[in-house]
Amino acid sequence: MQIPNQDTIIALSTAPGVGAIAVIRLSGPEAIEIVNDVFHGKSLTEQESHTAHFGTIRDNERADGIAKIIDEVLVTLFIAPKSFTKENVVEISCHGSPFIVQQIIKLFLRKGVRLAKPGEFTQRAFLNGKFDLAQAEAVADLINADTEAAHTAALNQMRGGFSEQIKQLRQELIHFASMIELELDFGEEDVEFADRQDLKNLVEKLLSVIKILANSFDLGNVIKNGVPTVIAGKPNAGKSTLLNALLNEEKAIVSDIAGTTRDFIEDEINLEGVVFRFIDTAGLRETEDKVEAIGVSRTREKMKQASLIIYLFDMKNDSIVEIHRDINMLENLGVPFIKVGNKVDEAQPELYEKLKEGNDVLFISAINKENLEALKTKLVETVNLDKFKTGDTVVTNIRHYDNLIQTQNALTAVMTGLESDITGDFLALDIRQALHYLGEITGEITTDDLLSNIFSKFCIGK
Amino acid sequence: MQIPNQDTIIALSTAPGVGAIAVIRLSGPEAIEIVNDVFHGKSLTEQESHTAHFGTIRDNERADGIAKIIDEVLVTLFIAPKSFTKENVVEISCHGSPFIVQQIIKLFLRKGVRLAKPGEFTQRAFLNGKFDLAQAEAVADLINADTEAAHTAALNQMRGGFSEQIKQLRQELIHFASMIELELDFGEEDVEFADRQDLKNLVEKLLSVIKILANSFDLGNVIKNGVPTVIAGKPNAGKSTLLNALLNEEKAIVSDIAGTTRDFIEDEINLEGVVFRFIDTAGLRETEDKVEAIGVSRTREKMKQASLIIYLFDMKNDSIVEIHRDINMLENLGVPFIKVGNKVDEAQPELYEKLKEGNDVLFISAINKENLEALKTKLVETVNLDKFKTGDTVVTNIRHYDNLIQTQNALTAVMTGLESDITGDFLALDIRQALHYLGEITGEITTDDLLSNIFSKFCIGK
Repeated sequence: MQIPNQDTIIALSTAPGVGAIAVIRLSGPEAIEIVNDVFHGKSLTEQESHTAHFGTIRDNERADGIAKIIDEVLVTLFIAPKSFTKENVVEISCHGSPFIVQQIIKLFLRKGVRLAKPGEFTQRAFLNGKFDLAQAEAVADLINADTEAAHTAALNQMRGGFSEQIKQLRQELIHFASMIELELDFGEEDVEFADRQDLKNLVEKLLSVIKILANSFDLGNVIKNGVPTVIAGKPNAGKSTLLNALLNEEKAIVSDIAGTTRDFIEDEINLEGVVFRFIDTAGLRETEDKVEAIGVSRTREKMKQASLIIYLFDMKNDSIVEIHRDINMLENLGVPFIKVGNKVDEAQPELYEKLKEGNDVLFISAINKENLEALKTKLVETVNLDKFKTGDTVVTNIRHYDNLIQTQNALTAVMTGLESDITGDFLALDIRQALHYLGEITGEITTDDLLSNIFSKFCIGK
Repeated sequence: MQIPNQDTIIALSTAPGVGAIAVIRLSGPEAIEIVNDVFHGKSLTEQESHTAHFGTIRDNERADGIAKIIDEVLVTLFIAPKSFTKENVVEISCHGSPFIVQQIIKLFLRKGVRLAKPGEFTQRAFLNGKFDLAQAEAVADLINADTEAAHTAALNQMRGGFSEQIKQLRQELIHFASMIELELDFGEEDVEFADRQDLKNLVEKLLSVIKILANSFDLGNVIKNGVPTVIAGKPNAGKSTLLNALLNEEKAIVSDIAGTTRDFIEDEINLEGVVFRFIDTAGLRETEDKVEAIGVSRTREKMKQASLIIYLFDMKNDSIVEIHRDINMLENLGVPFIKVGNKVDEAQPELYEKLKEGNDVLFISAINKENLEALKTKLVETVNLDKFKTGDTVVTNIRHYDNLIQTQNALTAVMTGLESDITGDFLALDIRQALHYLGEITGEITTDDLLSNIFSKFCIGK
């Protein structure tokens, strides 16, 4: 753990641009005194934590000698350790003009305050023990979450669910590690403080938990980054009609609450909080012919990148032979797929009869928007959010996934060592590895590189 | 004055987009109870004004029956009348994600809160007597101010300097109005409660103050909207070189504090807090030839739109005859202009001798950036900010200017009436007119149309 910084930092904490108000945040031991020096209204150093005070910010050191009012502001005080960073924190709520924000920040820079680096407030919170590293990372995920599922996952992680599980696993392992280190201290005496069978049981248990966590990353990744989806089918199948039908409904339900409307993202739909991203659809929507029949190699490549394929065929014109051939090929591809028969209102009766039972085919009419709800339900089902909804921990961060896999490797080595009766010092080495990787997840073990890598991805002011 | 609204309104008050935090504001008699209903942490209804409270916002009425946490937030309470709107106000500081902001606002909409209209918080503040109309308008000006001068003018107006002056003038006039109305009540009795000479003196005094205020609008308009400036001269004079030299220095001093950097605006420079906007410079910078010599009619039209002309001539090639002819023409145009001799390092010696004294010519070399500081000083001098700096009231709002002119007309009619011994009822009519126009400035007299016209220009959340 590093020694916390002792200087005072400042940044705009609200989104940049013009708004009704803007909030500038200062953190550091001197934060309250420094703000008090330019604040007129009352003495801030005599106020309690978590109180808000109206007054003016004045530049009292101007070249022309006039103490110029920069703005009327509301200042809220958070006295250490009862603050986000566990340091003294002052939030200045000023009029939401970039000019005023600039003037206020410049004033404090002249007073010796330093511009905060991206994520530096959260980094200080972490270094001061407010929360662990996985929780800190969840703060950034939370800010960037734009679906229900991503939001829930980030919030759970920020509130410590995931961290608790990791810390508990690590704690159990630490006990054995210290036992084995103790054996090493006794050197040649050949004592065994750590019961090998107990250790084996523990490692087995840890491995099974870690496997579940690592496996949850598939879902976690989908929650965070969406499901890459391909609509595959012959040029006549109605792929672009289907895509447009899905996207247009999405467009229609975009919220219009001021300030909360994200740009409409082409080629994405959000179903029950999960985003489905349609791959290479730019061409698809312009002309059907650009996407070739599913046997063509370029299409095969694209399909392999997908996590989900909607196989669309034409109930009016396609033959059962063609359809079976395509389904065969898709089964060999190994990517989950949904079979969808389009143009059901004009279907060949004999084709409909052959497919309607036991084939798990969904019949739709893209052009008439018929049965699209059933398709949407099917799409959501393939993601299997149930596990997520029951509150199980889901790993969404690739760094955590990486560390889990590294821990798994180290623990597997421990297991192999135990089975081949390896000496305590080698066991200790592998256990230490596992502890290291687990410890990095929650930040019990950190390096400057790791921290700067994590926090540099944060936005300014957080 | 209208009856204040009694419903509770909500809006995002910080700039839209992703930030570290976002602030959502609620105002209305029920604001605290409504937030308390979804806030977990402590009971907000038992807290004091101006206190901040950490907790979670939960949606407790979801279809799936699960009370889902939307975010960890900091809630600050302002209990009526100690708030911006003089109603109960709650500010919710949440994570700066548009998704979260949307979820929180939607939650409150389901609880019966209404989305605030643009400027509605400020409008309520006005209607509840927090400040007058001119002060309310200054809030919007303050948020949009992006120069030192515009910022100072808006802040002065918001803090009531201008309003005081207007209200005082109006108060003095009201006294006479009531005296004259009293005379009318006595009908045929031919009494004179209002001394005609006193009234005449007052109207004279008012007219002179109003004239000063109205005249200040020239400066106020420049402060708020910048100085439309034209660089005029023959194609060879070096106009584009001069413009580029000025603009490039401006580009170099743009601030890089995150969140405060405005887009660099082409064709504008900011000198001592005043913006000079160069008219029709798009063509000017591409090729000199596009702007014709100053005698050409198209150029004359452009120059007439300007508030300031930089007349640039070529010390190397132009003749004294040409220069004098141009200066003559400019004098007849009636727009202030600065005479600038370019290419001074290659000047014809005899031309330099002829111009160097008594002609008030500034000699520069645009290409070598020589003497540009002197030109900048001269530009600022022409705006004459001195009056502004001494703290005199400057009218920046065209609505106020308009009303001042209308007041002036009405008072002039009163004056004419007094001189021609007009009857009391006609005098009263004109005085009432003057009172009406003055009253509209500070909002002592308002109509729904006037208010909606003013506040609809505000941003959401203010």
